[in-house]
Amino acid sequence: MMINRSQRYARKAVKVDHAQNMIMQHVLQLKCEYTSIDSCLHRRISEPLYAKECMPHFRRSGLDGYAVLSAEALFATPQNPTCLTVIDEVPAGYTSNKQVVPGTAIRIMTGSAVPDGADAVIMFEQTEEYQEEGQISVRIKHKVNPGQNIAKVGDEITSGQLLMGAGTRIGPGQIALLASMGYEEVPVFHRPIVGVLTTGSELIAVGELLQPGRIRNSNAYMLAAQIEQYGGLAVMFGTAPDDGDEVVRMINDAMEKCDMLIVSGGVSVGDYDVMADFFTTIGGNDTTLLFNKIAMRPGSPTSAAVINNKLVFGLSGNPGACFVGFELLVRQALLAMQGIEKSTYHHLQAIMTDDYDKGCPHDRYIRGRMTYFNDQVKVSVLEKNNSSMLISIQEANCIIMIPAGSKVIAAGQQVEVIPLPYEITMY
Amino acid sequence: MMINRSQRYARKAVKVDHAQNMIMQHVLQLKCEYTSIDSCLHRRISEPLYAKECMPHFRRSGLDGYAVLSAEALFATPQNPTCLTVIDEVPAGYTSNKQVVPGTAIRIMTGSAVPDGADAVIMFEQTEEYQEEGQISVRIKHKVNPGQNIAKVGDEITSGQLLMGAGTRIGPGQIALLASMGYEEVPVFHRPIVGVLTTGSELIAVGELLQPGRIRNSNAYMLAAQIEQYGGLAVMFGTAPDDGDEVVRMINDAMEKCDMLIVSGGVSVGDYDVMADFFTTIGGNDTTLLFNKIAMRPGSPTSAAVINNKLVFGLSGNPGACFVGFELLVRQALLAMQGIEKSTYHHLQAIMTDDYDKGCPHDRYIRGRMTYFNDQVKVSVLEKNNSSMLISIQEANCIIMIPAGSKVIAAGQQVEVIPLPYEITMY
Repeated sequence: MMINRSQRYARKAVKVDHAQNMIMQHVLQLKCEYTSIDSCLHRRISEPLYAKECMPHFRRSGLDGYAVLSAEALFATPQNPTCLTVIDEVPAGYTSNKQVVPGTAIRIMTGSAVPDGADAVIMFEQTEEYQEEGQISVRIKHKVNPGQNIAKVGDEITSGQLLMGAGTRIGPGQIALLASMGYEEVPVFHRPIVGVLTTGSELIAVGELLQPGRIRNSNAYMLAAQIEQYGGLAVMFGTAPDDGDEVVRMINDAMEKCDMLIVSGGVSVGDYDVMADFFTTIGGNDTTLLFNKIAMRPGSPTSAAVINNKLVFGLSGNPGACFVGFELLVRQALLAMQGIEKSTYHHLQAIMTDDYDKGCPHDRYIRGRMTYFNDQVKVSVLEKNNSSMLISIQEANCIIMIPAGSKVIAAGQQVEVIPLPYEITMY
Repeated sequence: MMINRSQRYARKAVKVDHAQNMIMQHVLQLKCEYTSIDSCLHRRISEPLYAKECMPHFRRSGLDGYAVLSAEALFATPQNPTCLTVIDEVPAGYTSNKQVVPGTAIRIMTGSAVPDGADAVIMFEQTEEYQEEGQISVRIKHKVNPGQNIAKVGDEITSGQLLMGAGTRIGPGQIALLASMGYEEVPVFHRPIVGVLTTGSELIAVGELLQPGRIRNSNAYMLAAQIEQYGGLAVMFGTAPDDGDEVVRMINDAMEKCDMLIVSGGVSVGDYDVMADFFTTIGGNDTTLLFNKIAMRPGSPTSAAVINNKLVFGLSGNPGACFVGFELLVRQALLAMQGIEKSTYHHLQAIMTDDYDKGCPHDRYIRGRMTYFNDQVKVSVLEKNNSSMLISIQEANCIIMIPAGSKVIAAGQQVEVIPLPYEITMY
């Protein structure tokens, strides 16, 4: 099995940002669908939504009290109250068919439509109701200003206003808005279907007992979780044997069933690195190699290609490198498929808590943990950060970028970090 | 319907932290269950998990190369290489039954078990293979150090080590760890079943056309989304009419079907505020009122009780107040039911970008948006922040705490914020 070794070493490394840009040129445009508001949480809006109505769409009372004419009670005080006849009461959800005219008031609840004629609402606590000759009246004991406690039509939302843009992720605030605006069905992007295929004859299933030289397959589960976190639907295609023809067959089969494929393992220079051969031989017949080496650590043999307009990623089999490779390269494509236009990540600046002296001729991406000290963002390099190690992934809430050629980075120095979406600050 | 008005005004307000502490005294302990690793994403681990094996559990090669005895190649250079006979090759997943003895090397792949005898691995790139008289040999062209490129047994994880504590939320890193440690079934807390009941005759369904005085029910969807975000299972119990007896009947029915209940609306001083009456009359028969007023804005009439050991929350019907009430009071209970011990939130400090001059005799909680400027956390008060308004909820990624008695807070001043888990820093 001494194949293609020289070709593997001869791979040309591209810069990370160049690799990212190439990928973004080949993002598949997904169709949209309508989903019930009951099941739209965390989906992505597929088109800009505009308000079809004003909110409120009627003059709404801000509290429980009396709708009055403010001019009649401009100077009301507890000692010198304005006395008005209560001619009606309006529970929320109902409207009065009476009009507030001089000398009258209408009892009204929070959220009720303010009756015609009235231009202010005064709260119960500033009034006193009384009965006189069978007639209910009210003493207004505080001055009333025009417009007081009335939300005007369109105060919150005016008809035609943009509610949310394409790509918006639906959370509690978006759902509330969609419900209030009558979106029983919500236009969202299809969830990208992302295949996961692992390679490596050392891999055994999670339920199997360990044997010398064997390890359980953890990358498939990790990748599936990453895919789900960013809105994709993961489809597991199992583990391929170390056989080039069989890998090609499995990749082609998977490509028919998904929008994008991630293969982990087999991309390096080992004798059985079938994915390295796969990417080396790609080209023609609707296949294009984007890159098969990146000037970065970990994960330098990370590869990507386009097959029939769909992206195929070859990530490292080392869990740490696999994780980082996904966050740097796959995530942007997955988000773009769901309408996120920005092709780059929002990076933060953070202050290193400790020295870091592992220089590198290439850009290095290490798992870090951001914390907050007063109003400042600090970041620590996590222990057990080797590309082969996975235990630190669970603690990571960011990836620290160490630029190529850096020597020692001293505690207190500022570094750039890529935040991860996992409970950064939840508790 | 002139009922209990004086009782409503006589409610005694408790401080927010006191309300929070009372709630935490009554958190229901949920049972645990086992769930497949395929469906454990975002669930919470129910017991501390310890490593049953070391990782790696064999001496693992860190790269593709040759397993050698370092003493033989301590001084190897390209000009003066050490020449060794290649006696075997080990693909990942396999082991060699041969031993590396002086004068020999074994070809080995990344992740393979290092054969007995060898104490170092040298990468392909620093070697040259050649054939002599039908025998494969290798020139070691760089010096080799003892232990080089070998991960020792337990380098990453030692047997017995704590892997993750109870309450840990399962993300990609946790799943990778669980898979590698053989957790086909994962012990997790049951998802808390949280009922949602809305009150208010002004509420219409999302699919209905607006009518004067009517608004669509948005709180039920918003609360369900908040519940799901924090790991709960929301169960919708519809909208209760403004009828005290019917509300009690619906609450009792709901309580039998869930672990916790949230009712929105009807807690204020209006004539039809049926929940205010409900909480006022509670006590005895396995019912305990915790509070029916909180010294805060928005949401001062927010109430809570315990019925048959289960928490019932009465949140404001105003969407802004309802949202904040959930985050301040319900979220901690929901997380505690899933093993999160900390009874308080992790608050951050942030710098105000603008002046805020809306003083308040009570603690005020306003929707804010945190951003990062260099390594500093800044926060802006969102527009349309009234308790009746919902449009700003979608933009909020934190709640700004304005302490009771604050006057003007100037731009540049530091404030305390409660972060929300919604895409704080994602892009």
